[in-house]
Amino acid sequence: MRFVVGHKNPDTDSIVSSIVLAYFLDCYPAKLGKINPETEFVLRKFGVMEPETIESAKNKEIILVDHSERSQSLDDLDEGKLIAIIDHHKVGLTTSEPIIYYAKPVGSTATVIAELYFKKALDLIGGKNKELTPDLAGLLLSAILSDTVLFKSPTTTELDKEMAKKLAEIAGVKDIESLGLEILKAKSVVSKMEPEEIIKMDFKDFNFNGKKVGIGQVEIIDISEIEDKKKRIKELLEEKLKSEGYDLILFMITDIMKEGSEILVIGNKEMFEKAFNVKLENNSIFLPGVMSRKKQVVPPLERAYQ
Amino acid sequence: MRFVVGHKNPDTDSIVSSIVLAYFLDCYPAKLGKINPETEFVLRKFGVMEPETIESAKNKEIILVDHSERSQSLDDLDEGKLIAIIDHHKVGLTTSEPIIYYAKPVGSTATVIAELYFKKALDLIGGKNKELTPDLAGLLLSAILSDTVLFKSPTTTELDKEMAKKLAEIAGVKDIESLGLEILKAKSVVSKMEPEEIIKMDFKDFNFNGKKVGIGQVEIIDISEIEDKKKRIKELLEEKLKSEGYDLILFMITDIMKEGSEILVIGNKEMFEKAFNVKLENNSIFLPGVMSRKKQVVPPLERAYQ
Repeated sequence: MRFVVGHKNPDTDSIVSSIVLAYFLDCYPAKLGKINPETEFVLRKFGVMEPETIESAKNKEIILVDHSERSQSLDDLDEGKLIAIIDHHKVGLTTSEPIIYYAKPVGSTATVIAELYFKKALDLIGGKNKELTPDLAGLLLSAILSDTVLFKSPTTTELDKEMAKKLAEIAGVKDIESLGLEILKAKSVVSKMEPEEIIKMDFKDFNFNGKKVGIGQVEIIDISEIEDKKKRIKELLEEKLKSEGYDLILFMITDIMKEGSEILVIGNKEMFEKAFNVKLENNSIFLPGVMSRKKQVVPPLERAYQ
Repeated sequence: MRFVVGHKNPDTDSIVSSIVLAYFLDCYPAKLGKINPETEFVLRKFGVMEPETIESAKNKEIILVDHSERSQSLDDLDEGKLIAIIDHHKVGLTTSEPIIYYAKPVGSTATVIAELYFKKALDLIGGKNKELTPDLAGLLLSAILSDTVLFKSPTTTELDKEMAKKLAEIAGVKDIESLGLEILKAKSVVSKMEPEEIIKMDFKDFNFNGKKVGIGQVEIIDISEIEDKKKRIKELLEEKLKSEGYDLILFMITDIMKEGSEILVIGNKEMFEKAFNVKLENNSIFLPGVMSRKKQVVPPLERAYQ
């Protein structure tokens, strides 16, 4: 059996990419954990079922979407047969056999899939050029809006905007902006969530030069949504750092309206200061303009660890 | 300035892929060392100039073709800006920023480029869908024939054959088989070469779990071409092992007509025996059916080193 699967702590782009790519490749979508409230909203809005959860790669053919880091993937990835990777992140793994690899530096994996569809080029990666249904077009559009934070993230490219427009036509979405705000609002449900859940919602592990580093992110529209929970979040992250052997944990509280992130820094403070060339007063700092973990946080940090 | 560059010890696929992709991407082809007699024959046959040699990535934008191993690439790759990788090998590196990555498990990089051309999909990787000229079609065809050893290598796919046929039409090549034999003959010039040159012709370095491993290959049509040079080749490889810190060196003498390879094993013999589940009598063994370094030698060896 062949499965398309996104990363742990799945976000909307991971879930949507696995659903839509599985449709074109005639195989099964899968996920590695519970979907978040934003994804739940998107799936309900367009009337699509969530993928099944899988826990092992054993006896499976695996296609990875929206990640290429082993630490973010199935724990026993090597027990399965890796067929392909479709992604928009940096190259995060090596393989022992040739596979299909297709990645582009654009705002979302949904953008990559949408472009293949509109170019009738899905057969390049082993898919069929079938018709994209309005519900699946709505999912891809939502994933683009989510991953690019309504085109405000610095990872946004012209291709993301172009694909969003074309997808909106198929999906029958007249006002992209207002769909985007609906999605952001659904994402920004942290005021109703427990600190434990907030941390887990979008947390990714990295391996930088042998050191374990965790980077979490939460997007908010208004700082008041999270202000009274920050103390507890810090405590939980300090526990996590110790019990799970992290060298450093960063937690990005990204303010969509202010277009910047407050970074909570737990653990190897010096490495963070070196990477961002800043001096920490306490354990946190607001970095204006920083909204993308992938593009603005991971690269300087990885360089600092070298 | 932007350059498309293949691997060290360039073979025909590396040189041809850099020339043709540079044409579609409107940038410069480059190479990392002297071309071999086969490539020289192919370039002369279709009247195309060889690419310039570059030695550093500094101040350059780099597109890698036909490899993704750092050990086979520019020594100072990280000093340049890596833009894209177009390949048909296993994923051999990780990056610190997102790039364009497009690879498929087919017989040659030329096949990957030809498919993008015939699908009018070169814009997916930042190229222009211009017309493929007969001379460049002849080069791509030659690279497919060379890398798949006239479709006899187990890496050969249906796509390689399909692309070869379409390219032959554009190139005005009526008899693919006889072009293939001409190329193999040009490749098989070992009888006129010194052992020193034979070793260097197609030698690749790998890093398996921290150990340096070298795998060379020479293709012959008749064993008599190389028989009297084997002793000297072994001596030279033993010196190379010691002076350059290899854990293991394999040298594949691939007999195209017999469809198998004699493997000279220098260094960590036990690891070779473990990888291929064989017992060595002396320092060499003939493995029937083994013709591909990439598909039949690297994977079991990499697993053995884990």
